[in-house]
Amino acid sequence: MDVFFLGTGAGVPAKLRNVTSIALKLLEERGAIWLFDCGEATQHQILHTSIKPRRIEKIFITHLHGDHIYGLPGLLSSRSFQGGNSLVTVYGPPGIKEYIEISLKISKTYLKYPMEIVELEEGIIFEDEQFIVEARLLEHGIPSYGYRIIEKDRPGTLLADKLQAAGVKPGPDYRKIKNGEEVILDNGTMIDPTEFVGPPQKGRIISILGDTRKCKNAQLLAEKADLLIHESTFSAGEEAIAHEYFHSTTLQAAETALHAGAKKLCLTHISSRYDRNDWQQLEAEAKTIFPNTVLSEDFMEVLIPYDHDE
Amino acid sequence: MDVFFLGTGAGVPAKLRNVTSIALKLLEERGAIWLFDCGEATQHQILHTSIKPRRIEKIFITHLHGDHIYGLPGLLSSRSFQGGNSLVTVYGPPGIKEYIEISLKISKTYLKYPMEIVELEEGIIFEDEQFIVEARLLEHGIPSYGYRIIEKDRPGTLLADKLQAAGVKPGPDYRKIKNGEEVILDNGTMIDPTEFVGPPQKGRIISILGDTRKCKNAQLLAEKADLLIHESTFSAGEEAIAHEYFHSTTLQAAETALHAGAKKLCLTHISSRYDRNDWQQLEAEAKTIFPNTVLSEDFMEVLIPYDHDE
Ligand SMILES: [Zn+2]
Ligand SMILES: [Zn+2]
Repeated sequence: MDVFFLGTGAGVPAKLRNVTSIALKLLEERGAIWLFDCGEATQHQILHTSIKPRRIEKIFITHLHGDHIYGLPGLLSSRSFQGGNSLVTVYGPPGIKEYIEISLKISKTYLKYPMEIVELEEGIIFEDEQFIVEARLLEHGIPSYGYRIIEKDRPGTLLADKLQAAGVKPGPDYRKIKNGEEVILDNGTMIDPTEFVGPPQKGRIISILGDTRKCKNAQLLAEKADLLIHESTFSAGEEAIAHEYFHSTTLQAAETALHAGAKKLCLTHISSRYDRNDWQQLEAEAKTIFPNTVLSEDFMEVLIPYDHDE
Repeated sequence: MDVFFLGTGAGVPAKLRNVTSIALKLLEERGAIWLFDCGEATQHQILHTSIKPRRIEKIFITHLHGDHIYGLPGLLSSRSFQGGNSLVTVYGPPGIKEYIEISLKISKTYLKYPMEIVELEEGIIFEDEQFIVEARLLEHGIPSYGYRIIEKDRPGTLLADKLQAAGVKPGPDYRKIKNGEEVILDNGTMIDPTEFVGPPQKGRIISILGDTRKCKNAQLLAEKADLLIHESTFSAGEEAIAHEYFHSTTLQAAETALHAGAKKLCLTHISSRYDRNDWQQLEAEAKTIFPNTVLSEDFMEVLIPYDHDE
């Protein structure tokens, strides 16, 4: 599992940062990519990566500002040309359905794969045996959502050597033990399953937020997250302008990460008023409050390891 | 006056060719840029040129396929951020208005400049003292227009030395002569205006066509054009597939240029099935029929000189 930043700029595309899109790569977990936002030219950015559009399974839109959605019709169309035939589900605020449907209708685009569009309400918006995705409203000029992606814990693996030593034979007994059931062997020995299964693998939590002022829901979504991706349109000292335009500063993003007890913070949605020479300073500002901070760049990849400390 | 190719590919963006957009630079003539089509990431391409989005005065859309319009909402929005405050007029087939208006409405984008959207019918769609623009339907799967941009002839300049020798004094008489009126001097001499004005400057003609099969209207639009820009999605020999998908081959584009008596041909809308090594061959194919052919590339600029031979 890792996060790949396809676009990390704010508002309008710039030479060094495209408008927002983030890929959550779940290739080992489910052979899929989940996309968060799809600013214009996201498909162009993807051309320069190893990401296969046909692997995109879900697209989560945080809010309907142009710099977060204008790449959607093109990406969906091109996925058809590029051999995509599996279902794509798009989640986004009300309005996303009309935008996609009108864009495809007027351009006479017929997708060769099924698409489902889910207009959001707060709460759990997706759950299967692997993941839960929760959405909450943030504070922006228009409805803007943050997403909390919760990987479910995985049961521990069977300790085969120990089972063999105890005289348990591979077969139905193994399955029972794996499922946590007691087993009594032919010789009368009772096998306690907890002793023959390794520790469960704790799932990871990633929090990917849309544009927002500093707010309580951002912190709730980021609670103990392994990775928090938070906008930081402005630098420290620009709190007034950030408030006026419903955005956050480096310091505000770092405070949210700190109060949430997140493990790592990636700053994104960086205004083009800051050039390459300013980036280190922006990161340093956040680090004064939350040391494990990284300022994202286009094409940066961040691994999300399992936490083996717990 | 020159033409700048912002995107020269077909259907989907590729690393070496973006989807369609062509800028007609009329900086000397009227301090303006006219854009023809606006595929996704046209604004990104512009970032790498000297083109100022605020100078874009008119946008002509040939047809509503996604590779020709998906860059429009982003370009229009960003022009607002980039100091554009003058009127923009967008011309396109019926449907273009709904597409633009829904995209801007759903993304809550409020342009800081006035915009006018003209849904096309065939005929003269624009005329002022400098230019006439005529639109005709081509043959594509959906309504696809070609544009003929006719620069009006400019009256010759006053021959000041000759006027002075004849005893005409600068002032109201000069204006009359420039306007073609006869003037009688105080000494009774009659001044024939045609003798004191240089030859008129013949206006240029540029023909920019949307996706099309070879067709009569393409030839009519290109009649004696200084420059014809014609799609050539496929190579020679692919006439069957070109017909099926309502496109043209290199040879068909060249035939149209030849029969129209155009002076120069630029091929564009090149399928990504052809890579860099094939491009010379595509150009060579067209040249067998129409020698003054150039295969366009992204960021290529073509000057359109006045024709001094006539
Ligand atoms: Zn934004
Ligand atoms: Zn096309």
